[in-house]
Amino acid sequence: MTDTIVSSAKREIAIGFDRPFTIIGERINPTGRKILAEEMRQGDFSRVEADALAQVGCGAHMLDVNAGIPLADEPALLARAVKLVQSVTDVPLSIDSSIVDALKAGLEVYEGKALVNSVTGEEERLEAVLPLVAKHGAAVVAICNDETGISEDPDVRFEVARTIVNHAADYGITAADVVIDPLVMPIGAIGQAGKQVFALVRRIRQELKCNSTCGASNISFGLPNRHGINSAFLCMAIGAGMTSAITNPLHGEVVQAVMGADVVNGHDKDCARWIRRYREPTAGGEDAPSRLRRRRRGGNR
Amino acid sequence: MTDTIVSSAKREIAIGFDRPFTIIGERINPTGRKILAEEMRQGDFSRVEADALAQVGCGAHMLDVNAGIPLADEPALLARAVKLVQSVTDVPLSIDSSIVDALKAGLEVYEGKALVNSVTGEEERLEAVLPLVAKHGAAVVAICNDETGISEDPDVRFEVARTIVNHAADYGITAADVVIDPLVMPIGAIGQAGKQVFALVRRIRQELKCNSTCGASNISFGLPNRHGINSAFLCMAIGAGMTSAITNPLHGEVVQAVMGADVVNGHDKDCARWIRRYREPTAGGEDAPSRLRRRRRGGNR
Repeated sequence: MTDTIVSSAKREIAIGFDRPFTIIGERINPTGRKILAEEMRQGDFSRVEADALAQVGCGAHMLDVNAGIPLADEPALLARAVKLVQSVTDVPLSIDSSIVDALKAGLEVYEGKALVNSVTGEEERLEAVLPLVAKHGAAVVAICNDETGISEDPDVRFEVARTIVNHAADYGITAADVVIDPLVMPIGAIGQAGKQVFALVRRIRQELKCNSTCGASNISFGLPNRHGINSAFLCMAIGAGMTSAITNPLHGEVVQAVMGADVVNGHDKDCARWIRRYREPTAGGEDAPSRLRRRRRGGNR
Repeated sequence: MTDTIVSSAKREIAIGFDRPFTIIGERINPTGRKILAEEMRQGDFSRVEADALAQVGCGAHMLDVNAGIPLADEPALLARAVKLVQSVTDVPLSIDSSIVDALKAGLEVYEGKALVNSVTGEEERLEAVLPLVAKHGAAVVAICNDETGISEDPDVRFEVARTIVNHAADYGITAADVVIDPLVMPIGAIGQAGKQVFALVRRIRQELKCNSTCGASNISFGLPNRHGINSAFLCMAIGAGMTSAITNPLHGEVVQAVMGADVVNGHDKDCARWIRRYREPTAGGEDAPSRLRRRRRGGNR
């Protein structure tokens, strides 16, 4: 029954075993997005704002914010992005960087209880990130790799998770505030990648009593029709007990899969969220916005 | 590692723990299909033939054949439908009736090893159906209800399954030839329906070593966007270990969900089936047939 509570200034949400799945929007991340990277470097954050609004509009419950741009002043950029996103949305944020000073800068301007993304089992990283998390009373994503890299053996990955949870406890961070990422590998390269994750999620939940998250899209790397694979993976991961994922809510197929899995899991009371979203039959695949536009024009339905 | 082998005259397939999920096409069933019922009653089986071909074309691995039309000569109709479907496709069939004489008539004309749909835990039904199954060397779907009806308690449903497996053994039918239907209830009415099925499937697999099937669409009864719920349910059921379902392969969304779950489960070697189906990018949602038509006309891509 573990709940990980995160919040913005105005809104609190719980990532939890018996709750609807938490979608953490992944779009505000310049990695692999040249235009966004260049704009942010030049101080143009308009796309960050647009991405924040679009993702929340499409169903993100939290947003991941990353400003990892080579040779840029990442701490300053991340702090600015965090402040901007908090000024236009009220969802809690995941503050995402591999640079400790950037996490620090992001946390210093953050209003509420953030999710810090991330710590690994590497000694140096544990000792740099966990005190920051503790100081700000944040929660933290724990990634199951350490100095030896990412093990293909799920038992090794599980032991890394346990190590991180134990270290966190030393800093006064409870297991409820450690959200474990079991690491999703591409299924095209490792045929057991899916089953490994599901087995890990079950153990993380049963033995460590922790919530879990992942970069869901990794599963489909290199394959065609990636949304199809991602959707199936998310449903199966939710069935295995995963409680959140960093993914792209702009893909309706992915949001539908998550909402459908919530219904099937009994985590959408009276199917109310599902019915609200899908009750209006759409003629010819017409989407809600165009239906609304047509209504405003006085068209018949 | 249980395999349930079924066959037609020319083709054998295995429903199994470590195999791609088996889709059993549900369309050849006059229940709720007034036009089909009326045509079949009058001896017009053209729609049965068309439905058989369409379902196999869309990815069905087996077909369910039902001729349950009130006040009609069901044994004769079912036998005719079975013969017809076997003459136009080579997938194994599930012979579906609540009337024992109809099952008998279907089995008598069937070429290969059929799946008999179904037996329940009702004493009378067990004693009528199991000898037939044994006589024809068939496999059988075992539905988890008995004289007391369908229990909402999954432990009771499990015990019905165990009873059927034990009775089948008395007739020389192995557990591998009993495919258990845990009974899928509408999630809109019973919030625990999904979790119950997943828990049952795990027990059926671990304790009884049996394959499983279900009428997947029941889960979404009464809800909007049923394919969305059905797809999520199937992925989660496959994750829990379900090995087949009686469903509608004409819905691309459902087939995609099953194929995606096979990939994620590591049951699509080298993702070959997925890649074959989805590798061609479709411009503007264009489907394969219209692309082909355009090519024949010499259009550019």
